Amino acid sequence: MRSPVPDYLEEVLDGLREDRAGAVADYIPELAAAEPDQLGIALTTALGRTYAAGDADVEFTIQSISKPFAYAAALMDRGAGTVLSAVGVEPSGEAFNELSLEQDTRRPKNPMINAGALTVHSLLVGEDADPAARVERVRELFSRLAGRELRIDEAVCASELETAHRNLALAHMLRSYGILTGDVPTVVEGYTRQCSLLVTVRDLSAMAATLATGGIQPVTGEQVLDAATARQVMAVMASAGMYDGAGDWLVRVGIPAKSGVAGGMVGVLPDLVGIGTFSPRLDRQGNSRRGGRLFERLSQDMDMHLFSPNGSRQDAARASTAEGTTSVALEGVVQLTAASEMLDLLEDSDPATDVLLDLERVHSVTDLGRRMLLEGLRRIRLDGRGVTLRDPRGTLPDPDLGDGTFPDVAE
Amino acid sequence: MRSPVPDYLEEVLDGLREDRAGAVADYIPELAAAEPDQLGIALTTALGRTYAAGDADVEFTIQSISKPFAYAAALMDRGAGTVLSAVGVEPSGEAFNELSLEQDTRRPKNPMINAGALTVHSLLVGEDADPAARVERVRELFSRLAGRELRIDEAVCASELETAHRNLALAHMLRSYGILTGDVPTVVEGYTRQCSLLVTVRDLSAMAATLATGGIQPVTGEQVLDAATARQVMAVMASAGMYDGAGDWLVRVGIPAKSGVAGGMVGVLPDLVGIGTFSPRLDRQGNSRRGGRLFERLSQDMDMHLFSPNGSRQDAARASTAEGTTSVALEGVVQLTAASEMLDLLEDSDPATDVLLDLERVHSVTDLGRRMLLEGLRRIRLDGRGVTLRDPRGTLPDPDLGDGTFPDVAE
Amino acid sequence: MRSPVPDYLEEVLDGLREDRAGAVADYIPELAAAEPDQLGIALTTALGRTYAAGDADVEFTIQSISKPFAYAAALMDRGAGTVLSAVGVEPSGEAFNELSLEQDTRRPKNPMINAGALTVHSLLVGEDADPAARVERVRELFSRLAGRELRIDEAVCASELETAHRNLALAHMLRSYGILTGDVPTVVEGYTRQCSLLVTVRDLSAMAATLATGGIQPVTGEQVLDAATARQVMAVMASAGMYDGAGDWLVRVGIPAKSGVAGGMVGVLPDLVGIGTFSPRLDRQGNSRRGGRLFERLSQDMDMHLFSPNGSRQDAARASTAEGTTSVALEGVVQLTAASEMLDLLEDSDPATDVLLDLERVHSVTDLGRRMLLEGLRRIRLDGRGVTLRDPRGTLPDPDLGDGTFPDVAE
Amino acid sequence: MRSPVPDYLEEVLDGLREDRAGAVADYIPELAAAEPDQLGIALTTALGRTYAAGDADVEFTIQSISKPFAYAAALMDRGAGTVLSAVGVEPSGEAFNELSLEQDTRRPKNPMINAGALTVHSLLVGEDADPAARVERVRELFSRLAGRELRIDEAVCASELETAHRNLALAHMLRSYGILTGDVPTVVEGYTRQCSLLVTVRDLSAMAATLATGGIQPVTGEQVLDAATARQVMAVMASAGMYDGAGDWLVRVGIPAKSGVAGGMVGVLPDLVGIGTFSPRLDRQGNSRRGGRLFERLSQDMDMHLFSPNGSRQDAARASTAEGTTSVALEGVVQLTAASEMLDLLEDSDPATDVLLDLERVHSVTDLGRRMLLEGLRRIRLDGRGVTLRDPRGTLPDPDLGDGTFPDVAE
Repeated sequence: MRSPVPDYLEEVLDGLREDRAGAVADYIPELAAAEPDQLGIALTTALGRTYAAGDADVEFTIQSISKPFAYAAALMDRGAGTVLSAVGVEPSGEAFNELSLEQDTRRPKNPMINAGALTVHSLLVGEDADPAARVERVRELFSRLAGRELRIDEAVCASELETAHRNLALAHMLRSYGILTGDVPTVVEGYTRQCSLLVTVRDLSAMAATLATGGIQPVTGEQVLDAATARQVMAVMASAGMYDGAGDWLVRVGIPAKSGVAGGMVGVLPDLVGIGTFSPRLDRQGNSRRGGRLFERLSQDMDMHLFSPNGSRQDAARASTAEGTTSVALEGVVQLTAASEMLDLLEDSDPATDVLLDLERVHSVTDLGRRMLLEGLRRIRLDGRGVTLRDPRGTLPDPDLGDGTFPDVAE
Repeated sequence: MRSPVPDYLEEVLDGLREDRAGAVADYIPELAAAEPDQLGIALTTALGRTYAAGDADVEFTIQSISKPFAYAAALMDRGAGTVLSAVGVEPSGEAFNELSLEQDTRRPKNPMINAGALTVHSLLVGEDADPAARVERVRELFSRLAGRELRIDEAVCASELETAHRNLALAHMLRSYGILTGDVPTVVEGYTRQCSLLVTVRDLSAMAATLATGGIQPVTGEQVLDAATARQVMAVMASAGMYDGAGDWLVRVGIPAKSGVAGGMVGVLPDLVGIGTFSPRLDRQGNSRRGGRLFERLSQDMDMHLFSPNGSRQDAARASTAEGTTSVALEGVVQLTAASEMLDLLEDSDPATDVLLDLERVHSVTDLGRRMLLEGLRRIRLDGRGVTLRDPRGTLPDPDLGDGTFPDVAE
Repeated sequence: MRSPVPDYLEEVLDGLREDRAGAVADYIPELAAAEPDQLGIALTTALGRTYAAGDADVEFTIQSISKPFAYAAALMDRGAGTVLSAVGVEPSGEAFNELSLEQDTRRPKNPMINAGALTVHSLLVGEDADPAARVERVRELFSRLAGRELRIDEAVCASELETAHRNLALAHMLRSYGILTGDVPTVVEGYTRQCSLLVTVRDLSAMAATLATGGIQPVTGEQVLDAATARQVMAVMASAGMYDGAGDWLVRVGIPAKSGVAGGMVGVLPDLVGIGTFSPRLDRQGNSRRGGRLFERLSQDMDMHLFSPNGSRQDAARASTAEGTTSVALEGVVQLTAASEMLDLLEDSDPATDVLLDLERVHSVTDLGRRMLLEGLRRIRLDGRGVTLRDPRGTLPDPDLGDGTFPDVAE
Repeated sequence: MRSPVPDYLEEVLDGLREDRAGAVADYIPELAAAEPDQLGIALTTALGRTYAAGDADVEFTIQSISKPFAYAAALMDRGAGTVLSAVGVEPSGEAFNELSLEQDTRRPKNPMINAGALTVHSLLVGEDADPAARVERVRELFSRLAGRELRIDEAVCASELETAHRNLALAHMLRSYGILTGDVPTVVEGYTRQCSLLVTVRDLSAMAATLATGGIQPVTGEQVLDAATARQVMAVMASAGMYDGAGDWLVRVGIPAKSGVAGGMVGVLPDLVGIGTFSPRLDRQGNSRRGGRLFERLSQDMDMHLFSPNGSRQDAARASTAEGTTSVALEGVVQLTAASEMLDLLEDSDPATDVLLDLERVHSVTDLGRRMLLEGLRRIRLDGRGVTLRDPRGTLPDPDLGDGTFPDVAE
């Protein structure tokens, strides 16, 4: 039996393939050469399971998505006090490449805009650290977050450096205020190398899932970040991650997120899931056009929203086996992740047992959850196992498995 | 046996009583006459239990705290589309009484600033609604949210109207852009009446708890708001509720909140809790000085933070009784609410039974949670019941009940 | 012999008649009803001679052109210190109806924007003055500046008051900061009456010429303003008169000016001339489209520019009569006004005398000046008088009178 | 007989010597080492006479005072169209080192702020000019304006380059928008060299006087600038020369001016005079403290103000000699320059002749003018010449020469 989640994700991707709006970033040849139709997505749950679809193994440069994770590194390397005295946490209400300094302190308003990210890079490791050590610090941390060794795309990096006037401007300005220290071109080069790390959507979803768990990489089990750092990074992504559309994004999509100019996008829901997407065409704000729409779909279909009532309990599922029957009890709101959890539990169970699905503690079932549950049960029955449904509250009416048959009903 | 939660809250209040920084709002005599030392707090959980301490039954005018709830009313009365076309959802980065209109659309940036709140009031009920009906709409909705009939403080209202130049200015400006319609002085009067509704911290915590549950008033059980509205209101509070310090508040405290010039403050964590506080002295940003510090304490002590890992599962507790023993199983991170939940469950149980506390599914116990658990067990034993602890993972080491005795240990 | 100046002005008007760009202000019916093709101009020299062409006797409401002159009244009524403490003198870089308050003092940035003009109106006469006295003060002063009794267009005034939301907004805002005192609707009404005074381009040119002379109405000879007031008004017009295009206007046209929404426009060059124009169609900045172009033409043709080298001496001309010859000596740069001065002097001279035009002290002659001089000499010869030219420096080569004849040449 | 003008200037300097407010610029050692008490002034009239007092021959770096003159060079090298498409002419309302770009075009708002001045420098000579040629262009033009060969202070230049982060930031930003072309560090170095040219107050007054005359250096007689360029430079100085206090300066002082961080200051009144001052202590806006006060004194004492009525005719004086008498006829308003003109005319006259001073065409005499006239007549009488006054209009009542004696009175 195969989980229906990847099928769902493929379906979502297919729904967006015809959207060719926007344009690939073209300010350097290396980005302009990206295959514009590429489209990929990966989800990593807080419990460490990854679902992926589309161009999930294509590498692209991380670009601005490096900002929240480098911020995490700086918070751990220098302490929150030092970092906050150099970079604020307020939304800027401006584009990513605006200066956006606070009027009195001259601090960049937050670490998600370039001025803040340059300052964050300059803070890495320690006051007099070797510039190369700062880049390696980022590469090494990102690798642990992703669960594999990442490397830098030297061609993109070299090309970016040729047109780095904007970042040089920001860094010289910050240097003139004493916010940023060290040699300006060296800091800009280091930051550009940080942005040139190659990742896939699988990497991004794992990195974000590590935030969701409070710092524990859910696949490797390593505590990569401390819990306070993970919390602060998610909070800053929520208030400043989407630049000047932060409020609209939080209301409409509700998934703290960050995008990169190469087409990547990352999002996180605490306790639940990390998400990575990739599609190179950008909208006018410079965010991945289809990436943004993928997040919208996930938010709508799966009720994945920071302020979604009961959203926080949506993944609870438990299994126990007794007397030839594997019982799986679901709880709360059932949507994609809960349903997939159920299927995972059954996959691990004795295939010789029959299956009892207990919905007594379920509040409600979303459309997507219903589809997943019924499709899952259908596949289990195809495996030759008996399928019984216990639904005393009637939260799953008319449980047609899609082929005109119905599960048995308990009590 | 009495819950230790109110004791904890009293202790928190006591820790702040000496803080006399800030000053009572004095632009009208009615507010200037407030007793500056008043201090109160109430928490209402998503399950409908309210804990209160201090001046919890003192009435004060709701003022700007009316903004998110009147926004909820307008969303339900007119639909999200109509409301969004008149008022945005972006943080303004400015003080509450700034105009803060979007450059192109002239929409007020969000409904938490006065320009937005005036527009929201003008949208209530319907296009050609009677002005009095708008005020009554708010009074009636707020009453259902609070769970009791609220009334207007006519003296405060009359006095505010005498110095309403700022709001008259904002409303005339919006009128000139066609954002706000109707007679300007009438709209300002209606909004001022809305702000003059009298509430207590108990009312505020219940109102916020109704957001937390996705619209169901947790004490009365009434579905007062629809789920989408509750979600949108919380999202806007998160991004724009604390005016120009929105990012800092989200990072440091992490509880979407709104304050009023009379000293009230309201906060919410989805699925968890609504909070109301009252202390009339204001800081320089116009927020309640001790109110803000109360929220900080709750966030720190109780790990109440939107991005706190595992925060979402912190209240899970279940009880079952069999063979003369009431078993209570806790889950996740145990802090104040989980501990209080346990005590509530035991209070409802047969006092003739012994008690088994099962911590097998607990990940960790906060300092506050440990104190609460041990104090609770001590009080149960004082009631003459047997107390056994099951803690196979050792999450509650050295369980001294505070009097040198220990619970029995199971298996 | 008739002065060729009106012919020149008619010609300039004719050159712009085909320009129908822009649109008549239409926010109230009274302004929308203006005849869009109307076009008029008047110049009043510092010596009191007025030249006019086109619709020079059509009345229109003065609107924002009242601002500099009401500012003059307030300066004289209350002293520069009191006025400066309420209204600044900096350019705002914003549109006329922006709030544009200084960040610290909350003063409107200058008296040329509405916020400043409303404050100026509230300062007129004295602290507790009767509102009607303020309006009468303006009407009476403007009448003395124009040299005739002006009256208010009550229909326009009443109509403006119905849509005065923007000014009510500004005034309430200023009232909330304590910058403006008194009853807000009353101040707005008074200011609207001030803006509804009816003027012609002749009135405007005389009003401006009174600034040019340092306060002496050049036709009536009355000292209407004190010199310091006239100086301050011209300086503020120069830096803030043209709203957000102040710098461009000063560089390109160089004539401190002010426009009104009814299509009027006023300009001044110290010591030289006051200018009034009228054409109801407005450009996108709200300035009279053809009015602005008229000023451009005058600046280019006549070298009328605040920073035009030698511009200040351009009108010097002297006549003396001896032995049957009237000698007229010109000085500096000869353009329109110097040439017209010459003709005026000759008109006053004994028609029985011959004419000697002495150009020894002339630095240069503009194209327009040359045309005027030769046309003038031609007309004098037509009157049967002998015409001799003395031009030892050769500043008027090839003095063909236009009919193939030449003046006699002296020494 | 010695002109009393230098005595007057010495007196003005003496009145300010005790003012030690402000502080010498200290961001580089070379500026910090300036002797803070230095104080100098020079005036060059449009007729080419220079008066100086105090430290008039001390060299200091020209710094930002180079901006208007380099702007003149660019206007002549590239044409007004090209220059205007790269740099605007609007006041910025911001400090000199703000970016202040126009929102749509990204042009720096004007050439008086650093962003504009850097762009102007990059435009000098031609599109592909050698960087060294740009610096030499400025040095050579400034030398012709000053009337002597100027040289660069290499120590100041080298030191400035070490802390040029702000200018590097501005230039990189402009480079990223395509406003500025070429290698950024090279442009910044060239601009820094331009700012390091050494001048005296005599140089500055001659440079400004060249603007006043419309481009003719009044001492050398060379046409250094074309008239349109001189006009544009003066207009931009008027609207943007004093940064964020442009309006206040224009109203209060009325002399278009520009200051430099080394303590220099330059000012100009068209047709009249160029002024240079030097005093190293700066006020909080970064302008020379005593330099600003010197300009205020000149404006008040000498009625030197762009909008001063009759100010434009204040220097007219003519002499003729016949029958043993040198007659000097004054005109208009008599103040310092007219009086000094008279004395100069007499100095050039036959010392054997008596003197007749004719005031028939004088409108009024300022306090300072009266003092100058009487002191001048007293000195002439000391030379043994007869002194007669012709004053039919009584504009110089009670002409006591200061020693109890009076001039003879004519007719």
